[in-house]
Amino acid sequence: MLAPEKFSGVLTPVITPFNEDLSVNSDRLIAQCRWIISQDVGLAIFGTNSEANSLSIKEKIELLDELVENGIDPKKMMPGTGCCSLFETIELTTHAINLGVSGSLLLPPFYYKGVSDEGLYASYSEIIERIGSSNFRIYLYNIPPVSNIPISINLIDRLIKNYPNTVVGIKDSSGDWGNTKDMLDQKWDDFRVFVGSETFLLNNMRNGGSGCISATANVNPAAIRHLYQSWNNENAPNYQDKLDEVRNIFQEFPMIPALKAAAAIYSNDREWNRVRPPLLSLNKKQFEKLESNLREIKFSMPGLSKN
Amino acid sequence: MLAPEKFSGVLTPVITPFNEDLSVNSDRLIAQCRWIISQDVGLAIFGTNSEANSLSIKEKIELLDELVENGIDPKKMMPGTGCCSLFETIELTTHAINLGVSGSLLLPPFYYKGVSDEGLYASYSEIIERIGSSNFRIYLYNIPPVSNIPISINLIDRLIKNYPNTVVGIKDSSGDWGNTKDMLDQKWDDFRVFVGSETFLLNNMRNGGSGCISATANVNPAAIRHLYQSWNNENAPNYQDKLDEVRNIFQEFPMIPALKAAAAIYSNDREWNRVRPPLLSLNKKQFEKLESNLREIKFSMPGLSKN
Repeated sequence: MLAPEKFSGVLTPVITPFNEDLSVNSDRLIAQCRWIISQDVGLAIFGTNSEANSLSIKEKIELLDELVENGIDPKKMMPGTGCCSLFETIELTTHAINLGVSGSLLLPPFYYKGVSDEGLYASYSEIIERIGSSNFRIYLYNIPPVSNIPISINLIDRLIKNYPNTVVGIKDSSGDWGNTKDMLDQKWDDFRVFVGSETFLLNNMRNGGSGCISATANVNPAAIRHLYQSWNNENAPNYQDKLDEVRNIFQEFPMIPALKAAAAIYSNDREWNRVRPPLLSLNKKQFEKLESNLREIKFSMPGLSKN
Repeated sequence: MLAPEKFSGVLTPVITPFNEDLSVNSDRLIAQCRWIISQDVGLAIFGTNSEANSLSIKEKIELLDELVENGIDPKKMMPGTGCCSLFETIELTTHAINLGVSGSLLLPPFYYKGVSDEGLYASYSEIIERIGSSNFRIYLYNIPPVSNIPISINLIDRLIKNYPNTVVGIKDSSGDWGNTKDMLDQKWDDFRVFVGSETFLLNNMRNGGSGCISATANVNPAAIRHLYQSWNNENAPNYQDKLDEVRNIFQEFPMIPALKAAAAIYSNDREWNRVRPPLLSLNKKQFEKLESNLREIKFSMPGLSKN
C-alpha cells in the first residue's frame, strides 16, 4: 500500500440516508458518494453532519466495507473515526486504515468535560501508539460548539512535534476565524488546515490554508470547489459572496435536517428527508420555505449543483 | 421473570478498575460490587463516574455477563445504558433487561447539542417502543454539566404520561437543588427522584425523594446509607454535615481520579489508581494530599468504610 497523500481542497461530511425504519440506506449513500466525487469533492463520511454519532460502530464498519466494495475510492475518504471510547476509536480507525483511506478525522473523546491538554494528549498518543501504522494520518477535529472539547494550539504543537508523520492536519469548526488564523500563524510545516465552513474558505486560502470540509458541499459542491480552485483570481471575493448567500439559506434552519430536505428537493426523492432522533426533520412550513428560498438563487458562477 | 421493583435508597456508579494495558480488571470490579452490595448500596454500574463512556459497547455487554455469572445480583443493578447511537442504546439496554436488571439509567443521546424536547421525546419513544419489554424501567439521567442535554420538566411529564410503567424515575445530577425541587413539586405518582450527590440527600428525603446515586458511595457507602435510613431522625442534619465533610475532601480534586486513588488507599492496592484517557490519575502531590486528608477524618456516625 502506498503512503497516503495529504488532503487539500474541498471535502464534505456526506449526509447519511435512512430508510423508514431508520436503518441506513446504503444504496443512496453510495450514489451520493459517487456524485460528490464526480464534483471533485472528497468524502468526509461519518462527520457531524453525517449524523455519525447517531450511528453504531457496527454500522460504521459495515458501511465502510460496503462503500469500498461498491467502488468508492478509499483514497478519497477521510472518515470520522473518533469515539468516546479509546478502544472503539482504535477499532474503527484501524478498520478504515486497512481499507486504504487517506486519513481519519478524529474527534477527541467528547463525553468527559474540562479535560486537560495532558489528558487529550494521552488519548491521542494511546491511539497512535496502539494503531502503530505508518499509513495512519490524523486530521484533528476541533468543534467546540458541539464536542465542548477545544483543541488548543499547544496540544496541536506537541502532537505535531511527537508524531510529525501522523498528525498532519486539522478541521477547525470553531466557527471563529481568529482561532483558525492562530493555527495558520504557527506555520507548522505542511500542516493542513481546513475550515469547517466555506464561509472562511477565501480567508483560509489567502493565509496558507488547505481548503474546507463543509456540510453544504453536500448540495453545493461545484461552486465551493470553484472558489477553492480560483481563490487567487480577482473574482474570488464575488464567488465567496455567492457561497455565503447559499450558506445563509441553510443557516436559517437546523443544518442537518435542512441538508436532507435539500437533497430530497434536488433529487425529487422525499426518502432523503429523514433524520435519526434526537434530530427532527424540517416541518412542512420549514421545508416549503427552504424549497422556495433555494429556487430563488441566481448564480453567476458554476451553479448550485443538482443531485 | 417477576416485574422489577422500583429502586429507592443509595446507589453508586461503581468505579471501573483497569489493568496496566487499560483493559478492565473484572475480578476487582466483581469484588467492588460485592462489597458495595454488602453495604446495602445498589449498583449503578456504567455511570459517569464508572468511566462508562470510555468503555466500548462490547466491553459493557461482556462485563454485564461476567458480573451476573459471578453471582452479582442483577436486581441490584441500574446500569447506565444510554449511548449516542439509538441502536447501541437499544442493544445494550435489551441485553441488560434480559439479564434481569431492575432498571436502566438512561443518558440522553449527548453528541448533538441544542436538540429540542420533541427530538429527545422521539429518541426515548423509539427506544421504548423498539425494546417493547414489560420489564423495562427507565431512570432518566439529567446531568447537563457533562451531557449538555438538560431534561426538562415538560419532557419528563410527557414521558410519564405516555409510558407510566416504563419511565419510573430520574437521577438529577444538575447540581442544582432548585431543579430537583421543581421535579419533586410535580408530585408525579410514585416517580423516584434521586439526587446525584449525597449533598442533597437530606433535602431530597424531606421533600419526598427516593435517595441518591452518588460517586462517593464507592468509598463511603455505609455513612450515606445511614443518613438515608435515618433522615427523619433528629440527628440527621449532623449526619448530613459529616457526609458533606467527606464529599468536600473529594471535591478538591477531579472526582473520578480521586475516587480511584481513595480505593487504592483503602484497599492498599495501587492497581486501583488508574484511569483511561482523557482522564488522568492524580499526581503524586494530589495523591498524598488526598491520603492525608482522608486519614484525618473523625466520624461520630458509622465510619468511612474500608475497602
